[in-house]
Amino acid sequence: MKRTSFVRMTCPIAATLEVVGEWWSLLVVREAFLGRSRFEELQARLGIARNILAARLRTLTEHGVLDARPYQDHPPRFEYSLTEKGRALFPVIASLMAWGNDWTPQGTLGVGLVDRETGRTVQPVLVDRGTGAPIDSGTVRMARLERTESVPKKGGSSTRRRGP
Amino acid sequence: MKRTSFVRMTCPIAATLEVVGEWWSLLVVREAFLGRSRFEELQARLGIARNILAARLRTLTEHGVLDARPYQDHPPRFEYSLTEKGRALFPVIASLMAWGNDWTPQGTLGVGLVDRETGRTVQPVLVDRGTGAPIDSGTVRMARLERTESVPKKGGSSTRRRGP
Repeated sequence: MKRTSFVRMTCPIAATLEVVGEWWSLLVVREAFLGRSRFEELQARLGIARNILAARLRTLTEHGVLDARPYQDHPPRFEYSLTEKGRALFPVIASLMAWGNDWTPQGTLGVGLVDRETGRTVQPVLVDRGTGAPIDSGTVRMARLERTESVPKKGGSSTRRRGP
Repeated sequence: MKRTSFVRMTCPIAATLEVVGEWWSLLVVREAFLGRSRFEELQARLGIARNILAARLRTLTEHGVLDARPYQDHPPRFEYSLTEKGRALFPVIASLMAWGNDWTPQGTLGVGLVDRETGRTVQPVLVDRGTGAPIDSGTVRMARLERTESVPKKGGSSTRRRGP
C-alpha cells in the first residue's frame, strides 16, 4: 500500500516523520547510534527483510541522515554512519527509549543511557534551554511563533542544513 | 501488507514504536496535544482516510495513550483525549518538532513551543536529570544497565504503568 506523503503538511513534526517515520527507520537509526554500520550486521540484528532494509538505508542516505562509505570494491559494499543531521536525532531516540522504559513491559529490561566517561546512569529530561526548567504539556504548548519570537538554533532554523 | 511486529524485541525503543510507530499515529497524538478531540475534526485536519483514522484511534485507545469518552448517544460519538501515558509522549513530539525545525524545509514555518503563562518561546533541550548537563550521542551511550544501576523513574520503571 502506498502511503500518503506528509511532505506537504506545514508542520515540522510531519516533515520529520516524512524522513524517519517509516516502519523500521528509527530502529535503523538506533542501530547506527550503537555503532552498527554494515548491511549484513543490520540485517542480522533487526531480522528485517533485505529489500526493506535496503529501501530504508537508501531513504535515510538520500535525506542525509546516514552517510554511505564504500569499504570493499568487489563486490561493492558500504558502511553506514550517522551524519551530523543523523546524530541530531539523539533526543528523539532517547525520548522514545525513556517512554518505553516508563510505559511498556520492555521497561523491565534495564536498557538505558550511561555517561561515556563515568559510566553512570543518565536520565534524560527535556528542559527549556533558556531557563533550565523542565517542560511538559502542562507548562508549554505548540504554537505558530511570530517571526521576531523565533530564536534560530545552531545557526538558524530558516535554512535547511546538511550533514558534513 | 502486514508489518512485522516489534513486540518481541527486547528494546524499549522498539516497544514504543509498536505503540506509536504506525504511520499517522504520532500525528494523531500531535493533534491531541493541540486539543483536537473529535473524529470529524481529526479527519478534516489530517486529511486521513476514515478507516485508517479509526484504526489508529482504536490502537492508541487500546494501549491507553488516548481515552475515549462518549459525548453523544444517538448515534454514538466519542471524544479522545490524552491519558497520563499519552501526555508522557510530549518529549517525543517536542524532539520531533525541534529536529524538523533544524533540519527540514518546514523549519522555516515558525512552529515552536511557547510557555503557557508568559507566552515566551521555549527551546527544548535534553539534559541529564541528575546534573542538568545537556546530553547527546557524544556524551552518553545506550547500554544494558546493571540492575543496581537502574534508577526507577516516577515510581519505578519495572512495572507497567497505566494512565488514570
